[in-house]
Amino acid sequence: MKILYIGGQKSGKSSLAEKKILAISKKKPTYIATYDNSYHDREMQLRIDKHRERREAGFETIQEALHLDKVIQDGGYYLVDCLSMWILNLLESELDYQEILTSVLNTDATIIFVLNDVNNGIIPDNALSRRYIDMSGIIGQIVASECDEVYHIITGLKNRLK
Amino acid sequence: MKILYIGGQKSGKSSLAEKKILAISKKKPTYIATYDNSYHDREMQLRIDKHRERREAGFETIQEALHLDKVIQDGGYYLVDCLSMWILNLLESELDYQEILTSVLNTDATIIFVLNDVNNGIIPDNALSRRYIDMSGIIGQIVASECDEVYHIITGLKNRLK
Amino acid sequence: MKILYIGGQKSGKSSLAEKKILAISKKKPTYIATYDNSYHDREMQLRIDKHRERREAGFETIQEALHLDKVIQDGGYYLVDCLSMWILNLLESELDYQEILTSVLNTDATIIFVLNDVNNGIIPDNALSRRYIDMSGIIGQIVASECDEVYHIITGLKNRLK
Repeated sequence: MKILYIGGQKSGKSSLAEKKILAISKKKPTYIATYDNSYHDREMQLRIDKHRERREAGFETIQEALHLDKVIQDGGYYLVDCLSMWILNLLESELDYQEILTSVLNTDATIIFVLNDVNNGIIPDNALSRRYIDMSGIIGQIVASECDEVYHIITGLKNRLK
Repeated sequence: MKILYIGGQKSGKSSLAEKKILAISKKKPTYIATYDNSYHDREMQLRIDKHRERREAGFETIQEALHLDKVIQDGGYYLVDCLSMWILNLLESELDYQEILTSVLNTDATIIFVLNDVNNGIIPDNALSRRYIDMSGIIGQIVASECDEVYHIITGLKNRLK
Repeated sequence: MKILYIGGQKSGKSSLAEKKILAISKKKPTYIATYDNSYHDREMQLRIDKHRERREAGFETIQEALHLDKVIQDGGYYLVDCLSMWILNLLESELDYQEILTSVLNTDATIIFVLNDVNNGIIPDNALSRRYIDMSGIIGQIVASECDEVYHIITGLKNRLK
Protein backbone atom coordinates (compact mmCIF):
# COMPACT_ATOMS: atom_id res chain seq x y z
CA MET A 1 0.00 0.00 0.00
CA LYS A 2 1.26 3.46 -0.95
CA ILE A 3 -0.14 6.74 0.33
CA LEU A 4 0.77 10.36 -0.47
CA TYR A 5 0.27 13.40 1.77
CA ILE A 6 0.86 16.64 -0.11
CA GLY A 7 0.49 20.09 1.41
CA GLY A 8 2.15 23.45 1.86
CA GLN A 9 4.68 24.54 4.45
CA LYS A 10 3.36 24.00 8.00
CA SER A 11 0.13 22.56 6.68
CA GLY A 12 0.23 19.73 9.21
CA LYS A 13 0.99 17.05 6.60
CA SER A 14 3.86 15.38 8.49
CA SER A 15 1.85 15.10 11.65
CA LEU A 16 -1.10 13.50 9.86
CA ALA A 17 1.21 11.16 7.93
CA GLU A 18 2.91 10.08 11.15
CA LYS A 19 -0.42 9.28 12.80
CA LYS A 20 -1.53 7.34 9.73
CA ILE A 21 1.54 5.12 9.44
CA LEU A 22 1.42 4.39 13.18
CA ALA A 23 -2.26 3.47 12.83
CA ILE A 24 -1.81 1.06 9.91
CA SER A 25 1.57 -0.52 10.71
CA LYS A 26 1.59 -4.12 11.91
CA LYS A 27 5.11 -3.69 13.26
CA LYS A 28 7.31 -0.77 14.25
CA PRO A 29 7.44 1.53 11.22
CA THR A 30 10.62 3.01 9.84
CA TYR A 31 10.98 6.73 9.52
CA ILE A 32 13.17 7.63 6.53
CA ALA A 33 14.62 11.07 7.14
CA THR A 34 15.78 12.47 3.83
CA TYR A 35 17.79 15.45 4.97
CA ASP A 36 21.48 15.61 4.21
CA ASN A 37 23.57 16.47 7.26
CA SER A 38 26.09 18.37 5.22
CA TYR A 39 23.55 21.07 4.41
CA HIS A 40 22.62 22.08 7.92
CA ASP A 41 22.69 25.61 8.96
CA ARG A 42 21.42 26.53 12.40
CA GLU A 43 17.87 27.27 11.31
CA MET A 44 17.54 23.98 9.47
CA GLN A 45 18.93 22.15 12.48
CA LEU A 46 16.30 23.75 14.70
CA ARG A 47 13.57 22.69 12.30
CA ILE A 48 14.83 19.14 12.23
CA ASP A 49 15.13 19.01 16.01
CA LYS A 50 11.58 20.28 16.39
CA HIS A 51 10.37 17.71 13.92
CA ARG A 52 12.19 14.92 15.71
CA GLU A 53 10.83 15.96 19.10
CA ARG A 54 7.31 15.89 17.75
CA ARG A 55 7.68 12.45 16.28
CA GLU A 56 6.45 9.76 18.53
CA ALA A 57 8.81 7.19 20.01
CA GLY A 58 7.28 4.44 17.94
CA PHE A 59 9.65 4.70 14.96
CA GLU A 60 12.93 3.21 13.84
CA THR A 61 14.76 6.05 12.13
CA ILE A 62 16.97 5.77 9.06
CA GLN A 63 18.68 8.72 7.48
CA GLU A 64 18.92 8.39 3.72
CA ALA A 65 19.33 11.45 1.55
CA LEU A 66 19.27 9.77 -1.87
CA HIS A 67 19.02 5.99 -2.22
CA LEU A 68 15.49 5.37 -0.98
CA ASP A 69 15.46 2.19 -3.04
CA LYS A 70 18.29 0.70 -0.98
CA VAL A 71 16.60 1.11 2.39
CA ILE A 72 13.00 0.24 1.56
CA GLN A 73 12.36 -3.52 1.78
CA ASP A 74 9.42 -5.79 0.98
CA GLY A 75 7.09 -6.25 3.93
CA GLY A 76 8.18 -3.12 5.78
CA TYR A 77 6.23 -0.03 6.92
CA TYR A 78 7.81 3.29 5.99
CA LEU A 79 7.26 6.99 6.37
CA VAL A 80 9.30 8.99 3.82
CA ASP A 81 9.43 12.52 5.21
CA CYS A 82 9.90 14.19 3.01
CA LEU A 83 10.19 13.65 -0.71
CA SER A 84 10.88 17.38 -1.09
CA MET A 85 14.19 17.18 0.71
CA TRP A 86 15.05 14.11 -1.37
CA ILE A 87 14.27 16.08 -4.55
CA LEU A 88 16.54 18.87 -3.35
CA ASN A 89 19.32 16.33 -2.78
CA LEU A 90 18.70 14.82 -6.22
CA LEU A 91 19.22 18.20 -7.87
CA GLU A 92 22.77 18.17 -6.52
CA SER A 93 23.43 14.63 -7.69
CA GLU A 94 23.74 12.83 -11.01
CA LEU A 95 21.30 10.12 -10.05
CA ASP A 96 18.37 8.96 -12.14
CA TYR A 97 15.32 9.68 -10.02
CA GLN A 98 13.01 7.69 -12.28
CA GLU A 99 14.96 4.53 -11.59
CA ILE A 100 14.95 5.06 -7.82
CA LEU A 101 11.25 5.95 -7.80
CA THR A 102 10.21 3.00 -9.95
CA SER A 103 12.10 0.64 -7.69
CA VAL A 104 10.57 2.14 -4.53
CA LEU A 105 7.03 2.17 -5.94
CA ASN A 106 7.37 -1.46 -7.02
CA THR A 107 8.45 -2.65 -3.59
CA ASP A 108 5.84 -4.70 -1.78
CA ALA A 109 5.93 -2.43 1.26
CA THR A 110 3.54 -0.04 2.98
CA ILE A 111 4.89 3.44 2.34
CA ILE A 112 3.57 6.86 3.22
CA PHE A 113 5.19 9.68 1.27
CA VAL A 114 5.14 13.31 2.40
CA LEU A 115 5.55 15.99 -0.25
CA ASN A 116 5.75 19.75 0.22
CA ASP A 117 3.57 21.58 -2.30
CA VAL A 118 5.76 24.33 -3.77
CA ASN A 119 4.03 24.64 -7.14
CA ASN A 120 1.32 27.23 -6.52
CA GLY A 121 3.27 30.44 -6.19
CA ILE A 122 4.68 32.77 -8.76
CA ILE A 123 7.32 31.18 -11.01
CA PRO A 124 10.67 32.27 -9.54
CA ASP A 125 13.25 34.01 -11.66
CA ASN A 126 16.11 31.68 -10.89
CA ALA A 127 16.57 28.56 -12.97
CA LEU A 128 17.43 26.20 -10.11
CA SER A 129 14.20 27.05 -8.28
CA ARG A 130 12.26 26.44 -11.47
CA ARG A 131 13.95 23.05 -11.91
CA TYR A 132 13.11 22.20 -8.31
CA ILE A 133 9.47 23.18 -8.78
CA ASP A 134 9.21 21.20 -12.01
CA MET A 135 10.81 18.09 -10.51
CA SER A 136 8.58 18.39 -7.49
CA GLY A 137 5.48 18.51 -9.69
CA ILE A 138 6.58 15.68 -11.96
CA ILE A 139 7.58 13.43 -9.05
CA GLY A 140 4.31 14.28 -7.30
CA GLN A 141 2.41 13.10 -10.38
CA ILE A 142 4.42 9.88 -10.69
CA VAL A 143 4.01 9.01 -7.01
CA ALA A 144 0.31 9.93 -6.93
CA SER A 145 -0.38 7.78 -9.98
CA GLU A 146 0.95 4.71 -8.10
CA CYS A 147 -0.64 5.51 -4.75
CA ASP A 148 -3.80 3.93 -3.36
CA GLU A 149 -4.68 7.07 -1.41
CA VAL A 150 -3.70 10.72 -1.97
CA TYR A 151 -4.50 13.51 0.49
CA HIS A 152 -4.15 17.26 0.03
CA ILE A 153 -3.56 18.90 3.42
CA ILE A 154 -4.53 22.48 4.32
CA THR A 155 -4.55 23.90 7.86
CA GLY A 156 -4.21 20.42 9.32
CA LEU A 157 -7.29 19.20 7.46
CA LYS A 158 -7.32 16.68 4.65
CA ASN A 159 -9.00 16.62 1.30
CA ARG A 160 -8.90 13.17 -0.25
CA LEU A 161 -8.01 13.27 -3.96
CA LYS A 162 -7.80 9.52 -4.53
CA MET B 1 -19.56 29.57 16.04
CA LYS B 2 -16.18 29.97 14.35
CA ILE B 3 -15.55 29.70 10.61
CA LEU B 4 -12.34 29.93 8.56
CA TYR B 5 -12.01 30.98 4.93
CA ILE B 6 -8.53 30.27 3.57
CA GLY B 7 -7.44 30.96 0.01
CA GLY B 8 -4.77 32.54 -2.14
CA GLN B 9 -4.45 36.15 -3.24
CA LYS B 10 -7.58 37.35 -5.10
CA SER B 11 -9.25 34.01 -4.63
CA GLY B 12 -12.52 35.64 -3.62
CA LYS B 13 -12.28 34.57 0.03
CA SER B 14 -13.08 38.00 1.55
CA SER B 15 -16.13 38.42 -0.59
CA LEU B 16 -17.50 34.98 0.35
CA ALA B 17 -16.69 35.55 4.03
CA GLU B 18 -18.49 38.90 3.98
CA LYS B 19 -21.60 37.36 2.46
CA LYS B 20 -21.53 34.53 5.00
CA ILE B 21 -21.27 36.73 8.10
CA LEU B 22 -24.05 38.98 6.79
CA ALA B 23 -26.20 35.90 6.20
CA ILE B 24 -25.74 34.40 9.68
CA SER B 25 -25.59 37.52 11.86
CA LYS B 26 -28.57 38.27 14.06
CA LYS B 27 -27.43 41.87 14.48
CA LYS B 28 -25.11 44.22 12.61
CA PRO B 29 -21.76 42.41 12.38
CA THR B 30 -18.45 44.02 13.18
CA TYR B 31 -15.71 44.12 10.59
CA ILE B 32 -12.29 43.96 12.24
CA ALA B 33 -9.78 45.49 9.87
CA THR B 34 -6.32 44.31 10.88
CA TYR B 35 -4.16 46.63 8.83
CA ASP B 36 -1.81 49.03 10.57
CA ASN B 37 -2.11 52.58 9.25
CA SER B 38 1.55 53.27 9.79
CA TYR B 39 2.53 50.78 7.07
CA HIS B 40 0.60 52.28 4.22
CA ASP B 41 2.25 52.99 0.99
CA ARG B 42 0.14 54.14 -1.92
CA GLU B 43 -0.46 50.71 -3.38
CA MET B 44 -1.59 49.29 -0.07
CA GLN B 45 -3.90 52.27 0.42
CA LEU B 46 -5.50 51.61 -2.96
CA ARG B 47 -6.05 47.96 -2.06
CA ILE B 48 -7.65 48.89 1.24
CA ASP B 49 -9.87 51.51 -0.39
CA LYS B 50 -11.03 49.00 -2.99
CA HIS B 51 -11.74 46.49 -0.28
CA ARG B 52 -13.71 49.04 1.74
CA GLU B 53 -15.77 50.10 -1.25
CA ARG B 54 -16.70 46.52 -1.96
CA ARG B 55 -17.79 45.86 1.59
CA GLU B 56 -21.47 46.27 2.07
CA ALA B 57 -22.84 49.04 4.25
CA GLY B 58 -24.07 46.52 6.79
CA PHE B 59 -20.94 46.50 8.97
CA GLU B 60 -19.62 48.34 11.98
CA THR B 61 -15.90 48.70 11.36
CA ILE B 62 -13.16 48.51 13.98
CA GLN B 63 -9.51 48.85 13.15
CA GLU B 64 -7.33 46.67 15.35
CA ALA B 65 -3.88 45.65 14.20
CA LEU B 66 -2.90 43.43 17.15
CA HIS B 67 -5.22 43.00 20.15
CA LEU B 68 -8.06 41.02 18.60
CA ASP B 69 -8.84 39.68 22.06
CA LYS B 70 -9.65 43.17 23.34
CA VAL B 71 -12.26 43.97 20.69
CA ILE B 72 -14.06 40.65 20.32
CA GLN B 73 -16.87 40.27 22.85
CA ASP B 74 -19.24 37.48 23.83
CA GLY B 75 -22.44 37.52 21.81
CA GLY B 76 -21.06 39.55 18.92
CA TYR B 77 -20.73 38.78 15.20
CA TYR B 78 -17.32 39.43 13.71
CA LEU B 79 -15.45 39.25 10.46
CA VAL B 80 -11.67 39.25 10.97
CA ASP B 81 -10.21 40.25 7.59
CA CYS B 82 -7.60 39.24 7.58
CA LEU B 83 -5.55 37.12 9.93
CA SER B 84 -2.62 37.44 7.51
CA MET B 85 -2.25 41.15 8.12
CA TRP B 86 -2.51 40.49 11.85
CA ILE B 87 0.29 37.90 11.57
CA LEU B 88 2.44 40.44 9.75
CA ASN B 89 1.82 42.94 12.55
CA LEU B 90 2.64 40.28 15.15
CA LEU B 91 6.02 39.67 13.54
CA GLU B 92 6.92 43.27 14.34
CA SER B 93 5.69 43.04 17.92
CA GLU B 94 6.72 41.19 21.06
CA LEU B 95 3.23 39.87 21.70
CA ASP B 96 2.35 36.27 22.45
CA TYR B 97 0.04 35.24 19.62
CA GLN B 98 -0.97 32.02 21.34
CA GLU B 99 -2.44 33.94 24.23
CA ILE B 100 -4.39 36.31 21.97
CA LEU B 101 -5.64 33.45 19.79
CA THR B 102 -6.71 31.27 22.70
CA SER B 103 -8.66 34.14 24.18
CA VAL B 104 -10.35 34.94 20.86
CA LEU B 105 -11.20 31.32 20.11
CA ASN B 106 -12.67 30.86 23.57
CA THR B 107 -14.97 33.86 23.25
CA ASP B 108 -18.61 32.96 22.89
CA ALA B 109 -18.98 34.96 19.69
CA THR B 110 -19.67 34.20 16.05
CA ILE B 111 -16.42 34.86 14.21
CA ILE B 112 -15.41 34.41 10.60
CA PHE B 113 -11.67 34.46 10.03
CA VAL B 114 -10.09 35.15 6.65
CA LEU B 115 -6.57 33.83 6.03
CA ASN B 116 -4.40 34.28 2.97
CA ASP B 117 -2.76 31.03 1.89
CA VAL B 118 0.93 31.83 1.37
CA ASN B 119 2.31 28.36 2.09
CA ASN B 120 2.28 26.66 -1.31
CA GLY B 121 5.05 28.40 -3.17
CA ILE B 122 8.77 27.89 -3.15
CA ILE B 123 10.39 28.53 0.23
CA PRO B 124 11.82 32.05 0.01
CA ASP B 125 15.46 32.73 0.75
CA ASN B 126 14.90 35.43 3.33
CA ALA B 127 14.40 34.48 6.94
CA LEU B 128 11.59 36.93 7.72
CA SER B 129 9.47 35.56 4.87
CA ARG B 130 10.07 32.05 6.13
CA ARG B 131 8.99 33.07 9.65
CA TYR B 132 5.87 34.66 8.20
CA ILE B 133 5.02 31.54 6.21
CA ASP B 134 5.60 29.31 9.21
CA MET B 135 3.48 31.48 11.52
CA SER B 136 0.77 31.64 8.92
CA GLY B 137 0.68 27.84 8.65
CA ILE B 138 0.79 27.26 12.41
CA ILE B 139 -1.90 29.84 13.12
CA GLY B 140 -4.01 28.42 10.30
CA GLN B 141 -3.82 24.99 11.95
CA ILE B 142 -4.70 26.35 15.40
CA VAL B 143 -7.67 28.34 14.12
CA ALA B 144 -8.93 25.50 11.88
CA SER B 145 -8.78 23.03 14.77
CA GLU B 146 -11.22 25.23 16.75
CA CYS B 147 -13.52 26.12 13.87
CA ASP B 148 -16.86 24.53 13.13
CA GLU B 149 -16.48 25.08 9.40
CA VAL B 150 -13.37 25.52 7.24
CA TYR B 151 -13.47 26.45 3.54
CA HIS B 152 -10.65 26.45 1.00
CA ILE B 153 -11.37 29.05 -1.68
CA ILE B 154 -10.12 28.89 -5.28
CA THR B 155 -11.38 31.11 -8.13
CA GLY B 156 -14.29 32.27 -6.00
CA LEU B 157 -15.44 28.70 -5.38
CA LYS B 158 -15.35 26.91 -2.07
CA ASN B 159 -14.18 23.47 -1.08
CA ARG B 160 -15.37 22.56 2.41
CA LEU B 161 -12.63 20.93 4.49
CA LYS B 162 -14.57 20.71 7.76
CA MET C 1 -19.99 24.62 -22.55
CA LYS C 2 -17.06 26.18 -20.67
CA ILE C 3 -14.68 24.32 -18.39
CA LEU C 4 -11.74 25.53 -16.28
CA TYR C 5 -8.72 23.50 -15.18
CA ILE C 6 -6.67 25.34 -12.57
CA GLY C 7 -3.55 23.95 -10.90
CA GLY C 8 0.04 24.67 -10.01
CA GLN C 9 3.15 24.27 -12.13
CA LYS C 10 3.53 20.68 -13.40
CA SER C 11 0.30 19.65 -11.73
CA GLY C 12 -0.85 17.76 -14.80
CA LYS C 13 -3.61 20.23 -15.66
CA SER C 14 -2.75 20.58 -19.37
CA SER C 15 -2.67 16.86 -19.88
CA LEU C 16 -6.07 16.37 -18.23
CA ALA C 17 -7.53 19.31 -20.14
CA GLU C 18 -6.28 17.90 -23.44
CA LYS C 19 -7.84 14.51 -22.73
CA LYS C 20 -11.10 16.17 -21.77
CA ILE C 21 -11.47 18.32 -24.89
CA LEU C 22 -10.60 15.34 -27.09
CA ALA C 23 -13.24 13.29 -25.29
CA ILE C 24 -16.07 15.82 -25.63
CA SER C 25 -15.34 17.32 -29.06
CA LYS C 26 -17.64 16.40 -31.92
CA LYS C 27 -15.05 17.57 -34.46
CA LYS C 28 -11.32 18.21 -34.43
CA PRO C 29 -10.69 20.66 -31.57
CA THR C 30 -8.54 23.75 -31.90
CA TYR C 31 -5.60 24.24 -29.61
CA ILE C 32 -5.04 27.93 -28.92
CA ALA C 33 -1.43 28.40 -27.92
CA THR C 34 -1.11 31.73 -26.12
CA TYR C 35 2.65 32.12 -26.05
CA ASP C 36 4.26 35.05 -27.77
CA ASN C 37 7.17 34.02 -29.99
CA SER C 38 9.06 37.18 -29.29
CA TYR C 39 9.59 36.20 -25.65
CA HIS C 40 11.33 32.93 -26.20
CA ASP C 41 14.53 32.17 -24.49
CA ARG C 42 15.98 28.70 -24.83
CA GLU C 43 14.38 27.29 -21.71
CA MET C 44 10.94 28.50 -22.71
CA GLN C 45 11.41 27.04 -26.17
CA LEU C 46 12.25 23.65 -24.66
CA ARG C 47 9.13 23.79 -22.51
CA ILE C 48 6.96 24.62 -25.49
CA ASP C 49 8.52 21.88 -27.59
CA LYS C 50 7.93 19.34 -24.83
CA HIS C 51 4.38 20.49 -24.53
CA ARG C 52 3.83 20.26 -28.25
CA GLU C 53 5.30 16.75 -28.43
CA ARG C 54 2.99 15.59 -25.69
CA ARG C 55 -0.08 16.95 -27.37
CA GLU C 56 -1.88 14.43 -29.42
CA ALA C 57 -2.12 14.75 -33.16
CA GLY C 58 -5.84 15.37 -32.96
CA PHE C 59 -5.66 19.17 -32.77
CA GLU C 60 -5.67 22.10 -35.12
CA THR C 61 -3.25 24.61 -33.61
CA ILE C 62 -3.63 28.39 -33.64
CA GLN C 63 -1.14 30.70 -32.03
CA GLU C 64 -2.80 33.77 -30.55
CA ALA C 65 -1.08 35.72 -27.80
CA LEU C 66 -3.78 38.33 -27.14
CA HIS C 67 -6.99 38.41 -29.19
CA LEU C 68 -8.69 35.22 -28.06
CA ASP C 69 -12.01 36.78 -29.03
CA LYS C 70 -10.95 36.98 -32.68
CA VAL C 71 -10.11 33.29 -33.06
CA ILE C 72 -12.87 31.64 -31.02
CA GLN C 73 -16.00 31.05 -33.11
CA ASP C 74 -19.50 29.81 -32.38
CA GLY C 75 -19.82 26.04 -32.69
CA GLY C 76 -16.12 25.30 -32.28
CA TYR C 77 -14.21 23.21 -29.75
CA TYR C 78 -11.25 24.94 -28.15
CA LEU C 79 -8.48 24.33 -25.66
CA VAL C 80 -6.96 27.59 -24.40
CA ASP C 81 -3.59 26.63 -22.93
CA CYS C 82 -2.95 28.64 -21.10
CA LEU C 83 -4.73 31.70 -19.78
CA SER C 84 -1.63 32.46 -17.67
CA MET C 85 0.54 33.15 -20.68
CA TRP C 86 -2.27 35.28 -22.10
CA ILE C 87 -2.39 37.27 -18.83
CA LEU C 88 1.36 37.80 -19.03
CA ASN C 89 0.95 39.08 -22.59
CA LEU C 90 -1.90 41.36 -21.49
CA LEU C 91 0.32 42.97 -18.87
CA GLU C 92 2.55 44.18 -21.70
CA SER C 93 -0.34 45.48 -23.76
CA GLU C 94 -2.91 48.24 -23.45
CA LEU C 95 -5.82 45.94 -24.15
CA ASP C 96 -8.98 45.71 -22.08
CA TYR C 97 -9.05 42.13 -20.82
CA GLN C 98 -12.63 42.42 -19.58
CA GLU C 99 -13.85 43.09 -23.08
CA ILE C 100 -11.93 40.17 -24.58
CA LEU C 101 -13.04 37.81 -21.80
CA THR C 102 -16.69 38.81 -21.98
CA SER C 103 -16.71 38.25 -25.70
CA VAL C 104 -15.01 34.83 -25.38
CA LEU C 105 -17.27 33.70 -22.54
CA ASN C 106 -20.36 34.72 -24.48
CA THR C 107 -19.38 32.74 -27.56
CA ASP C 108 -21.49 29.68 -28.17
CA ALA C 109 -18.48 27.39 -28.29
CA THR C 110 -17.10 24.55 -26.18
CA ILE C 111 -14.00 25.93 -24.51
CA ILE C 112 -11.62 24.42 -21.97
CA PHE C 113 -9.43 26.98 -20.23
CA VAL C 114 -6.18 26.08 -18.47
CA LEU C 115 -4.95 28.42 -15.73
CA ASN C 116 -1.76 28.21 -13.72
CA ASP C 117 -2.39 28.79 -10.01
CA VAL C 118 0.22 31.33 -8.89
CA ASN C 119 -1.73 32.84 -5.99
CA ASN C 120 -0.78 30.67 -3.04
CA GLY C 121 2.79 31.67 -2.35
CA ILE C 122 4.25 34.57 -0.48
CA ILE C 123 3.40 37.95 -1.99
CA PRO C 124 6.45 38.95 -4.03
CA ASP C 125 8.20 42.24 -3.45
CA ASN C 126 8.08 43.43 -7.03
CA ALA C 127 5.06 45.32 -8.26
CA LEU C 128 4.78 43.63 -11.66
CA SER C 129 4.61 40.18 -10.07
CA ARG C 130 1.91 41.42 -7.71
CA ARG C 131 -0.08 42.80 -10.66
CA TYR C 132 0.30 39.48 -12.45
CA ILE C 133 -0.89 37.54 -9.39
CA ASP C 134 -3.84 39.87 -8.90
CA MET C 135 -4.90 39.70 -12.54
CA SER C 136 -4.53 35.95 -12.50
CA GLY C 137 -6.81 35.70 -9.46
CA ILE C 138 -9.39 38.13 -10.81
CA ILE C 139 -9.50 36.51 -14.24
CA GLY C 140 -9.72 33.09 -12.59
CA GLN C 141 -12.80 34.24 -10.68
CA ILE C 142 -14.43 35.75 -13.77
CA VAL C 143 -13.84 32.63 -15.87
CA ALA C 144 -14.89 30.24 -13.09
CA SER C 145 -18.13 32.15 -12.54
CA GLU C 146 -19.11 31.52 -16.18
CA CYS C 147 -17.91 27.93 -16.39
CA ASP C 148 -20.10 24.86 -16.14
CA GLU C 149 -17.32 22.81 -14.59
CA VAL C 150 -14.22 23.87 -12.63
CA TYR C 151 -11.46 21.47 -11.58
CA HIS C 152 -8.56 22.07 -9.21
CA ILE C 153 -5.64 19.82 -10.19
CA ILE C 154 -2.96 18.54 -7.80
CA THR C 155 -0.43 15.78 -8.63
CA GLY C 156 -2.40 14.86 -11.74
CA LEU C 157 -5.60 14.34 -9.73
CA LYS C 158 -8.68 16.49 -9.93
CA ASN C 159 -10.90 18.01 -7.30
CA ARG C 160 -14.15 19.26 -8.78
CA LEU C 161 -15.12 22.69 -7.42
CA LYS C 162 -18.17 23.23 -9.63
